[in-house]
Amino acid sequence: MSTVKHVPISPAGAALAPESVAAGTGAPGRVQHKGQQTKLAIIDAALGLATQIGLEGLSIGAVAEIMKMSKSGVFSHFGSREELQISVVREYFRRFEEDVFFPAMSAPKGLPRVQALFANWMKQVAVELQSGCIFISGAVDYDDRPGPVRDALVSSVQTWLDAFCRAVVLARELGHLDAGADERQIAFETHALILGLHYEHRFLKSPGSVERALAAFNAILQRHGQPGA
Amino acid sequence: MSTVKHVPISPAGAALAPESVAAGTGAPGRVQHKGQQTKLAIIDAALGLATQIGLEGLSIGAVAEIMKMSKSGVFSHFGSREELQISVVREYFRRFEEDVFFPAMSAPKGLPRVQALFANWMKQVAVELQSGCIFISGAVDYDDRPGPVRDALVSSVQTWLDAFCRAVVLARELGHLDAGADERQIAFETHALILGLHYEHRFLKSPGSVERALAAFNAILQRHGQPGA
Repeated sequence: MSTVKHVPISPAGAALAPESVAAGTGAPGRVQHKGQQTKLAIIDAALGLATQIGLEGLSIGAVAEIMKMSKSGVFSHFGSREELQISVVREYFRRFEEDVFFPAMSAPKGLPRVQALFANWMKQVAVELQSGCIFISGAVDYDDRPGPVRDALVSSVQTWLDAFCRAVVLARELGHLDAGADERQIAFETHALILGLHYEHRFLKSPGSVERALAAFNAILQRHGQPGA
Repeated sequence: MSTVKHVPISPAGAALAPESVAAGTGAPGRVQHKGQQTKLAIIDAALGLATQIGLEGLSIGAVAEIMKMSKSGVFSHFGSREELQISVVREYFRRFEEDVFFPAMSAPKGLPRVQALFANWMKQVAVELQSGCIFISGAVDYDDRPGPVRDALVSSVQTWLDAFCRAVVLARELGHLDAGADERQIAFETHALILGLHYEHRFLKSPGSVERALAAFNAILQRHGQPGA
């Protein structure tokens, strides 16, 4: 994460990845202690499991089984099931940043970048059919369950939405969108389309959902577009 | 369901409530066998539990505990956990119909009715903070879990979306919307707003979500509205 392109979404984004996890992620060439490598491998396995069965279903026992480790071996790396879950949220966020946010940063500032962010986001929920999105399943699991896991989820999603908003603001400042375009309203509607796409495409299997989401997104931009732009 | 106002959403809607359940629901004055009353009470308890912990978390044991019945007593009414889950989906759909669909039918045909359907739907997800929506949590639970419970959920949601589409078609036929207004596109976007509202209002606790969803819905109607109407 030392190149210009790989600046994390925001300081809050960086804060989501504390030293213990961040030191071993995305830092090629860095010497990793064996214990840390094991910890990262456990997080990877736990994330794979969480995208299948949900974050709340995650247990130290199930992860230990996948890793062919003892429960106490897994436990020693995290200290609690909750800490394991939080590490999974952080890692999911890091990958989301890598797959959705960073590639869009190479698009020109303004509208093209906003469009790239949406396109990558759509791809994330619609194309990756084999695994679920823990930002969506987590919202259901932790809807009414306060605590650090919920906080980590909310903070991750909010950091991402804030980054999307900043791209919209930039597009407005560059004159690609109306002076009155409200970034929070646009982010709300765009997020809703992603959730709608996830639901209709993955659950209802409605044909044409991807095209509908894209048409709706273009309509949002057009509504806030400079007349004649 | 014998008055004009209480015609079920569609034949498919009626099909969702087979005799065993339908006979005892919404038919005041009808003599119910004790066994049927017990069954309905079990479904009511199971539905309450499912909105808290999710449909997939439902177990005969947990419901028996709430009902202060034996497991085998609960089991004898359903024969399987799956049948209990399906009965819960049917009952949830019946109540959704009662709270969201029927009251909107008293609004004038056309745009006012479409707006009433959306307003009631919003109310359902945003105001009822104490319980979750099993159409939303169920989509996460059964995303990749084929079977009769998933089928019951998909069929319920699809029946509701079809009813919403019919209201949009009627609005178009009455000239309240453009001749080219695509009811499936409008239903997709409206459904997305409901999912966005659920997520942002209930999970992120973003202030202003209800107002944003309403503004977005009005923009959808305006985009498809007759110029000058």
